[in-house]
Amino acid sequence: MGVSQGGVAALRRRLDLLRRADLILSQVEDGRLLQRQFLALMMEAARVESGTLYLLDAERDELVFAVVEGPAGVAQALEGRRMPADWGIAGRCARQGRVIWVPSVEESRDWARDLAERSGYHPQNVLCLPLKAQERVIGVVQLFDRPPASPYSQTDIDFLSLLVNDLALKLENARLLSTSREMVERLRALLDVGVELGATLDRGHLLGLILEQVCRLLQTEAASIFELDEASGELVLCATTRPVPEELGTIRIPVGEGIAGWVAREGRTEVVPDVRQDSRFYPQVGEQTGFITRSILCTPLVIQEQVAGQEGIFRRRVIGVAQALNKRDGEPFTRADIEIFEGLARQAAIAMERVRLYRQVNDLFASALMALAEAMEAKDSYTRGHTRRVTDFSVAIAEELGLPPEEVHKVRTAAMLHDIGKIGMPDAILQKPGRVDEAEREVIRRHPQEGERILRPLQHLHEVLPGVAEHHERYDGTGYPRGLRGEEISLYGRIVAVADVFDALTSERCYRQAMPVEAALEEMRAQAGRAFDPHVLEAFFQAWEKGRIALSEPDSATPT
Amino acid sequence: MGVSQGGVAALRRRLDLLRRADLILSQVEDGRLLQRQFLALMMEAARVESGTLYLLDAERDELVFAVVEGPAGVAQALEGRRMPADWGIAGRCARQGRVIWVPSVEESRDWARDLAERSGYHPQNVLCLPLKAQERVIGVVQLFDRPPASPYSQTDIDFLSLLVNDLALKLENARLLSTSREMVERLRALLDVGVELGATLDRGHLLGLILEQVCRLLQTEAASIFELDEASGELVLCATTRPVPEELGTIRIPVGEGIAGWVAREGRTEVVPDVRQDSRFYPQVGEQTGFITRSILCTPLVIQEQVAGQEGIFRRRVIGVAQALNKRDGEPFTRADIEIFEGLARQAAIAMERVRLYRQVNDLFASALMALAEAMEAKDSYTRGHTRRVTDFSVAIAEELGLPPEEVHKVRTAAMLHDIGKIGMPDAILQKPGRVDEAEREVIRRHPQEGERILRPLQHLHEVLPGVAEHHERYDGTGYPRGLRGEEISLYGRIVAVADVFDALTSERCYRQAMPVEAALEEMRAQAGRAFDPHVLEAFFQAWEKGRIALSEPDSATPT
Repeated sequence: MGVSQGGVAALRRRLDLLRRADLILSQVEDGRLLQRQFLALMMEAARVESGTLYLLDAERDELVFAVVEGPAGVAQALEGRRMPADWGIAGRCARQGRVIWVPSVEESRDWARDLAERSGYHPQNVLCLPLKAQERVIGVVQLFDRPPASPYSQTDIDFLSLLVNDLALKLENARLLSTSREMVERLRALLDVGVELGATLDRGHLLGLILEQVCRLLQTEAASIFELDEASGELVLCATTRPVPEELGTIRIPVGEGIAGWVAREGRTEVVPDVRQDSRFYPQVGEQTGFITRSILCTPLVIQEQVAGQEGIFRRRVIGVAQALNKRDGEPFTRADIEIFEGLARQAAIAMERVRLYRQVNDLFASALMALAEAMEAKDSYTRGHTRRVTDFSVAIAEELGLPPEEVHKVRTAAMLHDIGKIGMPDAILQKPGRVDEAEREVIRRHPQEGERILRPLQHLHEVLPGVAEHHERYDGTGYPRGLRGEEISLYGRIVAVADVFDALTSERCYRQAMPVEAALEEMRAQAGRAFDPHVLEAFFQAWEKGRIALSEPDSATPT
Repeated sequence: MGVSQGGVAALRRRLDLLRRADLILSQVEDGRLLQRQFLALMMEAARVESGTLYLLDAERDELVFAVVEGPAGVAQALEGRRMPADWGIAGRCARQGRVIWVPSVEESRDWARDLAERSGYHPQNVLCLPLKAQERVIGVVQLFDRPPASPYSQTDIDFLSLLVNDLALKLENARLLSTSREMVERLRALLDVGVELGATLDRGHLLGLILEQVCRLLQTEAASIFELDEASGELVLCATTRPVPEELGTIRIPVGEGIAGWVAREGRTEVVPDVRQDSRFYPQVGEQTGFITRSILCTPLVIQEQVAGQEGIFRRRVIGVAQALNKRDGEPFTRADIEIFEGLARQAAIAMERVRLYRQVNDLFASALMALAEAMEAKDSYTRGHTRRVTDFSVAIAEELGLPPEEVHKVRTAAMLHDIGKIGMPDAILQKPGRVDEAEREVIRRHPQEGERILRPLQHLHEVLPGVAEHHERYDGTGYPRGLRGEEISLYGRIVAVADVFDALTSERCYRQAMPVEAALEEMRAQAGRAFDPHVLEAFFQAWEKGRIALSEPDSATPT
């Protein structure tokens, strides 16, 4: 068997090319460099001067110009561009998954003339090879302008296919690995977020955290959270990263309307890549806030709740929806984005439900105390409604003073409990018509301390106890039980004192008539700096003038 | 330049081997098959009949016999075995990261004679090639018994190195990808667990779920959870998958002692691959329960809690530790296991803290009601302590009836609230010495309904309201207010009725002396089927006989 010198040289050259391919694949880690070096090697193997490596973006079904080698300017015009996965000769190659040889590009009906015009490059012929990994096409290599004098042999094409396979394998491995590693990082971040959401019991703080994490984990421009108001069947916007002008009031979307409403009704995630092409989108909110929504990822907030009385049986309940708006890079949301967003939404829903439950138990606690105070008062027609009125007045004063919500809440609790110490006192003294004697007065004057004593076992209430213990102290130091003076008296005590006296003056008692309101206000003002902290008293008068403190009819419990 | 026929054949053969290697690498997905086929190809390329592929287990620093080809029986004797990563000729190759040629195995001081003896195979010479990925050695290929007549040329060795590189690249990619994908799956499972833990408010159910998930996610034989008792500085075993004999009582470990105590003190995870070699391990518990602990993974349960009054400032607090014991496959815990366990522990700690907080608020609620009931009773020396005694008696009866803990809790609440309806009734009637008249009796008889009315706004208490409303109903239908009969009366009502009457009989009232206890018990028994449900009454007597119901001195609040 005779062997030509050329044949041996070709064999040696191929072995050498394989060895170099191996070096590139095993040593180059940077993706762009790998692709560039590999295409250069393919062009050398094919003995051509121009070539293109396309990669398939399967999620968007597009071919991306990954590397373009050729006359000056061509690469700049094309690299990074995208085209539909079935366009042009490359598209045919990708679709059919086999090698295509086009001896005359101009005569091919597949040739994408527009792109060629744009790049300014007009090749004569092209060999097109698919990159395949596990039987799926993941890209295409085009090799242009083989000299017509030396056409490709079958062996040439087999060898080029072998080289392309090596590249496909490497690229696919790298893609799978980087996708998987990215997912590991995102899931880890998601777990951290779950822990962070689990650490707060403050609703406002929680909602802010959720929005922040949506924008961070999904890299979006904005996010918002709606809660389902089951009574009205509406979604209520409860938090958003975009400032909503106050004049818009509360934004509500009926379930079933708009994208958020659709998601709440269907109970599943919806991706809207371009809101202009989705008839459900209604742009009013955006127009009013000046935010231009392009794309939306919207998912329901769902909790699993135990079916009452059925151990271990849970049912899904939609409590709201979360939206992520406009990815920062302008790309569409990916499958990984959806998974992460759904995971975040599950954690957010649990955290929101936990905070709601905690609030509910606290509210329950408050209403139980109020119910008891009212029951206690009910046996004396003169004091009926006193606790509720003092509570309303105290809250109005606290708000007028600009206290933060949690402080207002403590003032409310202190006011509700201010007379609880009377619970152990004989009716005969509390309800005595006419003046009480000195011994009886001593008993009554014990009620602030007695209230403090009763409540002391309740750790939860420690901060509000001074409001109970000190509501009969006077600003000038002449009050009881301790004769505290000025700022020695807790703010809660100073607030409740004002509210308590005003209600006492304007209510009928068994031993005297109610004072006309003007006289009562005059009496109050006269006590500035004597019974009352002038600053607190000022807040009382402001609340009075704004109508936030008002007298009710004797039998109606709540002033409105 | 002359080319021999042999040279051309060798070139063709190498190209063909590379092509086949490429096929194996791109088409074989099963790891074992891939390794087997590849080693066979290497042996063909080296023209030898025996070979071994070792893979490095970096975490344990061992070489594993992955594939062994050679005389019958050798593979069975060696495949799957492990040896320290620096043993033998393979170990030297791995350590030095370069090709080693040993022309006479018997004369090499590195030769692992023991293993050779065990396999019964005695090779003459060996070529040893490292598998490298990104400059790290990931395994070794040994090729035995090249015919001495045709020694390896440098070109042969270069070519075999090229082949080995291809395999190393593929194996490393596959390993990285499968490690990463496994992590994705484990993290997803962990996220699901977080959601599951977030759905329960029942402590026992939560602890059971945590243990179950530890065993599932880490594939261990057992798991346990200790809670830190800050008062005593001890860890208290609160849940374990192993049944603990009752006679052992509560298992406590001082912080700082044993492995769990060490982890609680240091606040970080500890892995103990073999407890027999760890002086901290103390085997008492295991000996008593008959469980043999081999390996332990132990991590602290830590929560982030807000520093009081400092918005946004959190501090770490150890609330306990979790242990995973004995991996099912007998292997040591991996880094991935540790990450998953720590992630699970973070979620478990949050869920436990949430349940504790919820309990605490509920307990607070209960103690507030008790405080009020006691304050109310305090003004009448005759009824002082009545509510607490009725509550203790009712709980003892409920437990004697074998009710589950949540039902006992409801009985307790109903008992605490049974007389709350008296809160709005005049002292003059409640404390009247001597007999009350008909009108006064009517007022007093309203207290069960009045209690129900006061508590109705509290959704949380709906289930226990019948216990309040029906504690004066009689089993024979002659009670008040509704004249319910038999099982028409709620179980809570039937229990509180027994407890209430017993305390009334044995306490002094303003209008009569306390009855001697024997007479009271006789009177109680006489009411079986009349005032009382006989079944509930029976439980009362059993509790009495066991000393779980006892009379206290008039001034001591709790019978013990």
